[in-house]
Amino acid sequence: MIFCRSSKASSPEYSTSQNMPFWLSKTILAETCATYSRSGSKEKMQWYVVASLLTILTSSQGILTTLSQSNGGYKYDYATVPFLAEVFKLIVSAVLLWRECQRSPPPKMTTEWKSVRLYPIPSIIYLIHNNVQFATLTYVDTSTYQIMGNLKIVTTGILFRLFLKRKLSNLQWIAIVLLAVGTTTSQVKGCGESSCDSLFSSPIQGYMLGILSACLSALAGVYTEFLMKKNNDSLYWQNVQLYTFGAIFNLARLVLDDFRSGFEKGPWWQRIFNGYSITTWMVVLNLGSTGLLVSWLMKYADNIVKVYSTSMAMLLTMVLSVFLFNFKPTVQLFLGITVCMMSLHMYFASPSTLLDLPLTAKAAPESAIEVSVDRRMDS
Amino acid sequence: MIFCRSSKASSPEYSTSQNMPFWLSKTILAETCATYSRSGSKEKMQWYVVASLLTILTSSQGILTTLSQSNGGYKYDYATVPFLAEVFKLIVSAVLLWRECQRSPPPKMTTEWKSVRLYPIPSIIYLIHNNVQFATLTYVDTSTYQIMGNLKIVTTGILFRLFLKRKLSNLQWIAIVLLAVGTTTSQVKGCGESSCDSLFSSPIQGYMLGILSACLSALAGVYTEFLMKKNNDSLYWQNVQLYTFGAIFNLARLVLDDFRSGFEKGPWWQRIFNGYSITTWMVVLNLGSTGLLVSWLMKYADNIVKVYSTSMAMLLTMVLSVFLFNFKPTVQLFLGITVCMMSLHMYFASPSTLLDLPLTAKAAPESAIEVSVDRRMDS
Repeated sequence: MIFCRSSKASSPEYSTSQNMPFWLSKTILAETCATYSRSGSKEKMQWYVVASLLTILTSSQGILTTLSQSNGGYKYDYATVPFLAEVFKLIVSAVLLWRECQRSPPPKMTTEWKSVRLYPIPSIIYLIHNNVQFATLTYVDTSTYQIMGNLKIVTTGILFRLFLKRKLSNLQWIAIVLLAVGTTTSQVKGCGESSCDSLFSSPIQGYMLGILSACLSALAGVYTEFLMKKNNDSLYWQNVQLYTFGAIFNLARLVLDDFRSGFEKGPWWQRIFNGYSITTWMVVLNLGSTGLLVSWLMKYADNIVKVYSTSMAMLLTMVLSVFLFNFKPTVQLFLGITVCMMSLHMYFASPSTLLDLPLTAKAAPESAIEVSVDRRMDS
Repeated sequence: MIFCRSSKASSPEYSTSQNMPFWLSKTILAETCATYSRSGSKEKMQWYVVASLLTILTSSQGILTTLSQSNGGYKYDYATVPFLAEVFKLIVSAVLLWRECQRSPPPKMTTEWKSVRLYPIPSIIYLIHNNVQFATLTYVDTSTYQIMGNLKIVTTGILFRLFLKRKLSNLQWIAIVLLAVGTTTSQVKGCGESSCDSLFSSPIQGYMLGILSACLSALAGVYTEFLMKKNNDSLYWQNVQLYTFGAIFNLARLVLDDFRSGFEKGPWWQRIFNGYSITTWMVVLNLGSTGLLVSWLMKYADNIVKVYSTSMAMLLTMVLSVFLFNFKPTVQLFLGITVCMMSLHMYFASPSTLLDLPLTAKAAPESAIEVSVDRRMDS
């Protein structure tokens, strides 16, 4: 295990602290590294930009996917999109890694099996997640599923605290809960819309699976963050490992689909680009770029930053849909956006900005401030 | 003008600081007094109890009023209720003042016309407010009016800052906005309910009057607080003045109603108790008690405490209605309650509780904490 190292040696080094629990030692040190690497203002500027870019691209993803449909359906096989996106990410990361290798000092790369074997784990978690998601949808309708999806924000906070041992202040917990409440508020059906009773009327299994789904989604994110921060290997080398396994798992899915359908439409390599338009290619490139930005955030920022980016993207999509698809704006959307904006400010603003209390007057009776009034003043 | 005085003299004393602007000098000193009187933990305990009691009574008010109706209408003249409540408050305050006068030291009472003439002002503001309210309802429907009513929370914060010169921290402003958003969220119509488009489709005059109404309501509250805190007169003496004018204004309304209806149902003194049931009397006593608690809060706590009490009461009423009147709970109600609870905690919890940041790990990348990692550690 290597940590916070700017050594020029390219050979991997291993941790000798065998008496420390594997998980604990790694996370504590990863955290120190993260705090250290994040303290520079240049890095801070960078993650603001990356997070904003992620918001824009995630938002475009929903809009592009809608635009790529024709007559309400897909002309192409949607399962090919994530596979191609993984291949795109793999190619980009490989090229960047190769360029990094030309430079001096060469990038740090841990090639030990002990380290490499951890990289398929996020893909495996996502695989389980997809199946749970599928099972959930047999019990609940899509709008209930969408609303339950916001639970992911809270579970990410909890796993972030439990597994990455990251402390959050009381105020930051409030902000996280408010983000989940805000996104949910914006999604609640307006009056006059159909399927009203569905939210409370699904079988209990549906809700249990929804919670499990939120936990798995959060676990995948938290595990990826752990993976990216556990040593200071080159980001591109980490990406190459992550996306190689990602591409393999997605390919396996395509092959499985072929077997399931009994090769009705031919094998995957014959139908991979069938029905692809320019918009479909943009969906692929957009999804790939989103993934690359998420990797960057996992290494240099954290899961909570990612959660805020994607939540803001969801709201941005809804606002853009008002203009693009004549989506009818609801009061709930406006209220939800307000709550999310307040949450964003609460989570990321510095305590001194939030509590710019005056010296004399006190509005909150709670804080015990003893003001000594000169009693002779009024005699 | 007398301030923060615990003198034994009962004769009024006047301010000699003629070179100071009337309003400014009064508010600044009132504020100092308020801070001083509020710094004791006994007073703090007291206002918690009073605020909780106000929440319960305000909530009962709505439920009792609904219960006092028969066949969806009032058997009694509803205009007599606030008049009798004013009389009840006047009697209670007079008795308490009389008891206070028996004790030593006697209560402080400013009997100057210069001071007494300020006490009808809240009643006058409420009179204007009622007329604006009436005018607003000719443009917008009741549910839009109810939603716009939450604007009062924000306008109270603004007038509290502007007129009483009370500073609020950034976080407290966020809390106030969230309280308004939370109460609005809980009131938004669920799906399947009627009158959907009404919220955005009223004429512009309706919204302007709604804003004016919110400002007037906030102004009445803020002015009352100024009045109660401007000197350390006995609370009961201040109440006696306030409620005498309150009773007069309400009586004037009854007389005016008589003239308007051409004495169809006889003069007010003949029909005042017509159709009164035990529940109606409970409505009167409840309304009166609510008023007395508000007066207490205006003197010893502030408008924001009152706003929180009444907002919580609104939510409590909705929750109780689920059980009492088979009111159908919506997701919005649950989300709104969550936002309001978070807001309550944010406004009143001490900064140290909210920002219990750990010493080592930092979750918020914003706060620039420089952690000096020993570089030799990993070499």
